Amino acid sequence: MQIVSDVAGEVLDVPVQANAPLKAGDVLFTIDPTPYQATVKALRQEALEELGAEIILANTYHLYLRPGHELVRKLGGLHRFMSWPHAILTDSGGYQVFSLSELRKMTDEGVRFRSHLDGSEHLLTPEKAAEIQLALGSDIAMVLDECIETPAPRDKAESAVQRTTAWAKRARKHFLDHATRNGDLPQWQFGIVQGATFPDLRRASAQQLLEFDFPGYAVGGLAVGEPHDLTCAMTAEVTALLPHDRPRYLMGVGRPEQIADYVALGVDMMDCVLPTRAARHACLYTSEGRVLIKNARYAQDENPIDANCICSVCRRYTRAYLRHLFAAGEITAAILASHHNVHFYLDIMRQIREAIGFGNLAKFSSEMHARYSAGVA
Amino acid sequence: MQIVSDVAGEVLDVPVQANAPLKAGDVLFTIDPTPYQATVKALRQEALEELGAEIILANTYHLYLRPGHELVRKLGGLHRFMSWPHAILTDSGGYQVFSLSELRKMTDEGVRFRSHLDGSEHLLTPEKAAEIQLALGSDIAMVLDECIETPAPRDKAESAVQRTTAWAKRARKHFLDHATRNGDLPQWQFGIVQGATFPDLRRASAQQLLEFDFPGYAVGGLAVGEPHDLTCAMTAEVTALLPHDRPRYLMGVGRPEQIADYVALGVDMMDCVLPTRAARHACLYTSEGRVLIKNARYAQDENPIDANCICSVCRRYTRAYLRHLFAAGEITAAILASHHNVHFYLDIMRQIREAIGFGNLAKFSSEMHARYSAGVA
Repeated sequence: MQIVSDVAGEVLDVPVQANAPLKAGDVLFTIDPTPYQATVKALRQEALEELGAEIILANTYHLYLRPGHELVRKLGGLHRFMSWPHAILTDSGGYQVFSLSELRKMTDEGVRFRSHLDGSEHLLTPEKAAEIQLALGSDIAMVLDECIETPAPRDKAESAVQRTTAWAKRARKHFLDHATRNGDLPQWQFGIVQGATFPDLRRASAQQLLEFDFPGYAVGGLAVGEPHDLTCAMTAEVTALLPHDRPRYLMGVGRPEQIADYVALGVDMMDCVLPTRAARHACLYTSEGRVLIKNARYAQDENPIDANCICSVCRRYTRAYLRHLFAAGEITAAILASHHNVHFYLDIMRQIREAIGFGNLAKFSSEMHARYSAGVA
Repeated sequence: MQIVSDVAGEVLDVPVQANAPLKAGDVLFTIDPTPYQATVKALRQEALEELGAEIILANTYHLYLRPGHELVRKLGGLHRFMSWPHAILTDSGGYQVFSLSELRKMTDEGVRFRSHLDGSEHLLTPEKAAEIQLALGSDIAMVLDECIETPAPRDKAESAVQRTTAWAKRARKHFLDHATRNGDLPQWQFGIVQGATFPDLRRASAQQLLEFDFPGYAVGGLAVGEPHDLTCAMTAEVTALLPHDRPRYLMGVGRPEQIADYVALGVDMMDCVLPTRAARHACLYTSEGRVLIKNARYAQDENPIDANCICSVCRRYTRAYLRHLFAAGEITAAILASHHNVHFYLDIMRQIREAIGFGNLAKFSSEMHARYSAGVA
């Protein structure tokens, strides 16, 4: 993957040149419009390109079960399968195994689970998760980690860190063996730091992963219900230790007003379901705060969703029309709302890069918090 | 509405110049991608423009109940409300009253019904149907007619024709009084021929409507379960009597292979839910026949939906990907399939106009029947 750095840098292009060293000071800001199943919900790939999305996320768990990673491999990989010639990040599948499947049984070998689709039994190991992602052909692949429920007792968090490190080692070996056999590094493989809300465990997890020389590192198991301050504190413990010339990826965040906080702590990449999921539930993000568009106050509102927004939805449609589409349960409501919300998130990233350049990220952050703490518009 | 005639003519533009005489030989071919509620399901207005749709249909019944015609009037009419600066046809609301609402009570005054949304009671009269459509500000408005269940006994069909004529007279008077008061004709108001499957009643209905000098005429109450040959026979009875220099509109048709048959009988306009509804049910129309895309045979099919199609979906996505999206229940499946099917229907109309120009409409028609009788691909 080519990393092109302007003020703050962006993930811009495939194919991957994995493990190519980043220049010090390069920072990746990328946001994931959260597709699950080789599609971003309610948005055509053409719309994502119009929006300027440069990297999207696809769920390994879903694609492994349906249509199957071997089918995707046979059809030329995920980029070709879904006609997305830009960057793709795949998760390890672990998180969905924990949140969606039944009869999970965790051993040192891996996690045994039943499909939420047909009840079939499967075993996901660190090697298997790496193998599936190689078949999918994503640009960034994640190692399998052990996700635990929170709040977690210390002994459970400690053993999860140990297992996560052991699995990362196996995943890295499997990946590098594959690369050696094939003579190139087809992906960037990222490690994932665990450790729940224990600072020393977080630091230990990060230190242990550094041994394996990943080209990028993620922070997992945060923003799962704990207070925002605690998420930030744990993130800071980890980003302080991770190399500044490699991408640092905070998984599964965040709310619009929180993003700049994470960036200020050294986070370069995030992903979140919020822009598209909130859109489907009629929650629109604007420069003035959230707009719950089903509210009766918008019935005759001829303003765009956000008067400061330049997206194609705000240029053409009114709040009154959006409200009508949601009230009528029309698919076009999800299409238009998702388009706007993804634009809003990508625009936050653009504003953050600009704020970094001008040295006023803290000001941007406090303004965002002020707007979003003011409550729902 | 400006009617621009090339070989066969198209409805091309708003604003309306209602009652402007058509030249003899002008023929309108227009197809309606069937929106219900001020949207074509799963397609943004931008997509409809990309597809070259020139006229769309909106349901008066739905818009009267939600968001309400007075709200639409207040917000500048339907064109502005939904940001569609091209032509709009509204139906009278009668058909949905018959098919969706409860507790219908029909009298000479009108039809009393309860909303399918909240059970509220309403009275739809010929004057009210005209008034609602004036508020919506569509380009073509339909008079309220009496729809009856089929097959209908002769006495019921006969009384429905009488009432339809009486209602057409009242609707025309209401509309023209409005126009006189305002000094212009804001819409084209079309009459609707009824008469079930009785040739003499069909002819009588048409003759009676001609008295009111409508700028266009529709044929209603056909393609509701009777054999295609009978639909054609009844249509032919009516189109023979209706003025050739005014649009003749066969309501609620049809299947891809039937459209040329209707055109050959003198039909200029049609509307149908089929392109978008079939799309949402994974039925794709192609130059080789129907493709039921969920079929396992398409799982590894890297061809486009239709190798002969130039739509943006066929240029980018494979059958294998479409099948995956339907299997996964993704909204993007409906978006892509609807886009393709509407393109297919609009392309049929283009091919029909060309066939008329080259004098081989009969050949085109028989080829379409051959492809579509061959069964499902």
